[in-house]
Amino acid sequence: MEEKLQKFKKLSAEISNLRATSAVLNWDQLVNMPAGAAEDRGEQIATIEEILHQKSTSEELGRLLEDLSADAKTLDADSDEARMIKVAKRQFDKAVKVPADYVSENARVTTVAQSVWEKAKTESDFEIFRPYLQQVVDLRRQYADFFKPWDHVYDPLLDDFEPGMKTAEVQEIFGKLRPMQVKLIKAIAQKPQVEKSFLELEYPEKGQLDFGVEVIRQFGYDWNHGRQDKSAHPFTTGFGLNDVRITTRFNTHYLPTAMFGTMHECGHALYELGINKAYNRTPLADGASMAVHESQSRMWENLVGRSRAFWKHYFPRLQTIFPSQLGNVNAEMFYKAVNAVEPSFIRTESDEATYNLHIMLRLEMEIALMEGSLAVKDAREAWNEKFKAYLGLVPPDDAHGVLQDVHWSFGGLGYFPTYALGNLVSVQIWERMTRDIPDVEEQIGEAKFDGLLAWLREHVHIFGAKYEPQELMVKVTGSRITPEPYMRYLETKFGEIYAL
Amino acid sequence: MEEKLQKFKKLSAEISNLRATSAVLNWDQLVNMPAGAAEDRGEQIATIEEILHQKSTSEELGRLLEDLSADAKTLDADSDEARMIKVAKRQFDKAVKVPADYVSENARVTTVAQSVWEKAKTESDFEIFRPYLQQVVDLRRQYADFFKPWDHVYDPLLDDFEPGMKTAEVQEIFGKLRPMQVKLIKAIAQKPQVEKSFLELEYPEKGQLDFGVEVIRQFGYDWNHGRQDKSAHPFTTGFGLNDVRITTRFNTHYLPTAMFGTMHECGHALYELGINKAYNRTPLADGASMAVHESQSRMWENLVGRSRAFWKHYFPRLQTIFPSQLGNVNAEMFYKAVNAVEPSFIRTESDEATYNLHIMLRLEMEIALMEGSLAVKDAREAWNEKFKAYLGLVPPDDAHGVLQDVHWSFGGLGYFPTYALGNLVSVQIWERMTRDIPDVEEQIGEAKFDGLLAWLREHVHIFGAKYEPQELMVKVTGSRITPEPYMRYLETKFGEIYAL
Repeated sequence: MEEKLQKFKKLSAEISNLRATSAVLNWDQLVNMPAGAAEDRGEQIATIEEILHQKSTSEELGRLLEDLSADAKTLDADSDEARMIKVAKRQFDKAVKVPADYVSENARVTTVAQSVWEKAKTESDFEIFRPYLQQVVDLRRQYADFFKPWDHVYDPLLDDFEPGMKTAEVQEIFGKLRPMQVKLIKAIAQKPQVEKSFLELEYPEKGQLDFGVEVIRQFGYDWNHGRQDKSAHPFTTGFGLNDVRITTRFNTHYLPTAMFGTMHECGHALYELGINKAYNRTPLADGASMAVHESQSRMWENLVGRSRAFWKHYFPRLQTIFPSQLGNVNAEMFYKAVNAVEPSFIRTESDEATYNLHIMLRLEMEIALMEGSLAVKDAREAWNEKFKAYLGLVPPDDAHGVLQDVHWSFGGLGYFPTYALGNLVSVQIWERMTRDIPDVEEQIGEAKFDGLLAWLREHVHIFGAKYEPQELMVKVTGSRITPEPYMRYLETKFGEIYAL
Repeated sequence: MEEKLQKFKKLSAEISNLRATSAVLNWDQLVNMPAGAAEDRGEQIATIEEILHQKSTSEELGRLLEDLSADAKTLDADSDEARMIKVAKRQFDKAVKVPADYVSENARVTTVAQSVWEKAKTESDFEIFRPYLQQVVDLRRQYADFFKPWDHVYDPLLDDFEPGMKTAEVQEIFGKLRPMQVKLIKAIAQKPQVEKSFLELEYPEKGQLDFGVEVIRQFGYDWNHGRQDKSAHPFTTGFGLNDVRITTRFNTHYLPTAMFGTMHECGHALYELGINKAYNRTPLADGASMAVHESQSRMWENLVGRSRAFWKHYFPRLQTIFPSQLGNVNAEMFYKAVNAVEPSFIRTESDEATYNLHIMLRLEMEIALMEGSLAVKDAREAWNEKFKAYLGLVPPDDAHGVLQDVHWSFGGLGYFPTYALGNLVSVQIWERMTRDIPDVEEQIGEAKFDGLLAWLREHVHIFGAKYEPQELMVKVTGSRITPEPYMRYLETKFGEIYAL
């Protein structure tokens, strides 16, 4: 068995190196690559993805996993080795269902689609992107078919991001959440709005960058194992457990964009950098799921970054960077401003009370596109209609509507719901954490984050992908993902801010 | 045959995509990667290089090339297809001699060695780099052994960069060159030195960057297919024929470093960007050899960038960027200053008259290291002794001596002589070009480079690796590489500047 394990680890390391390589090609494309190289890059990524697929589905690996799965019965079921084999077996059984041709075609299409999306977004014209979205949707439907039978055509997509989660379960959770959030928003709409116009003054990029760097350095982001760049859509990507990079988008006329975007991506990066280094180049060197990943980014962005305690410490600092813009503002005003609840167009800039409605809109559209009940050519109209229905607004253009997110261009249908689930998970974990660190707010008020980060590392990060998400949630919080903590959190926080 | 050709092109495209991918990983390492990720990056590059080696030496490719080489007799020997097969066959026959284990080990060692070299250079301590150089040299000797029998242990290394060239031939060319260059330098040393202290004032990076960008934009460098970054050692790298990037090193107290470095790398990039796009992802999508490559970089750096005509146009522009530093200088003074002949420590900043002596030193050391007549532990002393003998100076520290170049850290022994050959080739081609463009100097004086670039594209660039270097030289200039044009050029130019 030892020999087989070594062989398995060698193959896993190769697969992991190829994944990291593909991620480097992709990061470079979004951060550095000259526009004229998009097609070539598509070919390069396609070659790597094809090899990756071959290696991930090789008979050799299959036989090895078959043998090891049998042998693993002699191991402690909770040992790293046993878990590694289990996770690899699950991935293998999924991967062998997808033909190599499909994989390279998908890589080629989505690479070009990402470049086209950037252009379409810049020109704010959905028609430029439409034929590429059509190809992406066709490919995703083809993909779902590889996993038949399913309860719902959307299940296989969701399962890629949230192992074990079903469309019906997500719909049930969202079903509980929606009336509560709608009720909350209506109640807030009856109250006077908080002052927040000062967030829309001119804030030069340099100051925004410096402030963001200062904050995430104090959060614990390690520049020896990461870096920060600019990109059209902020994201985090890791090339192994020692190089986890974030990107940021700056808006010189809206301060929160880069500020909370930076904290958000830093949260993702801290998660990956906190995974047990012994898991590097193994199937466990990953987050437990996208929802758990998102819980970490939303935690640093919202539970830390949008807290009163945080601004008690950081507002004076921010004021020294932007004295003319913030001279007449105080910490309490700033805290309320960055928590203002107001329906708006861009998901990544939306407040905590409306955020999940942005997700519900996308989830419903994705389900309809996959079912075929919505045609791609009608996607812009569908978006705008739903937006009006849920948030009471009509996007002024496609860049503020159907084109705002990168996800569809890379084929990431199934990804969005994990954002809302991540919100729930973040508060569920936070509630548990406060039992161990009851003075966490005071610590945040003193810009001390090491206790919090150490707790997250010990209880969440360290495990990587060892546990499935629901298993991890039970282990950490004693319960599966549930909306109640998040509902309590929203009611308390916004009840206080808006005096409901 | 058509079917086999298609299959061959598909395999070639895969190999080309893997090469491009490896180059992206390497570029990222030198330009962006956080230091803490060096080991992981080594593993990633090793995986890609291992797969690349498998694909480049596969039985499938071997059989295909065997068959196609036979079939190719029915093709026009000068057709792209016939040449493609010939070049691929040559590469295949070399590659199969190198075991896969060696390839991945070499990739792993040189990746780490590059990071260590950066650190060693920063700390100017050869001892930090020494054990890694030992590993590199051991690996290179092992490599040479795969190609036995050879006339000289250094031949296989040279052949990788300069197809068909032998150590003995290079020594013969250098043998002719050396006495002439030594004589020239001695004659110049008798004459009063030109004024050049103004080059060592403080020149802020921003202005240097802007000027460089302006110049290479006018040379014809296309930002839609390239970009410029900073790195410890300037280099050019291409990921296919549509993405050729350059890097630059800035020295705020020595103006020529970045200025001529930028033109130099731009020359390399213009070559690759000028290769027939129909060759993309084929074995012809490359320069004819490193010497030909270097001829293009040296041509733009020296024959264009260090010409009187160039500064007639550009000096007034430079003066407006650096008015306080260059207020009391004129174009003629500037022309002479950037052509001052004076033995100095750094090869990349050395003048045209002494440059080749830097190369001869390295060539002799490399040959001695390969023969085993010089031990790695004695490399610093050997360098310093030779430097004193050839250039009359002793390097003040390792950063200005044995550690100055990146090449050894990536295993590039055999590379340096192509720099000196490139100088010869540049003038040999230039002499031929002036027959077609007799007013090239006037054009340069008006910052018009499109005629020159078009000529180079038509006569040199377009062919990529279709012709072997000596074949290309005969085709373009009517003769093999010969030192006489370069010797004439040096005597005329410096005879005039120093009134010899």
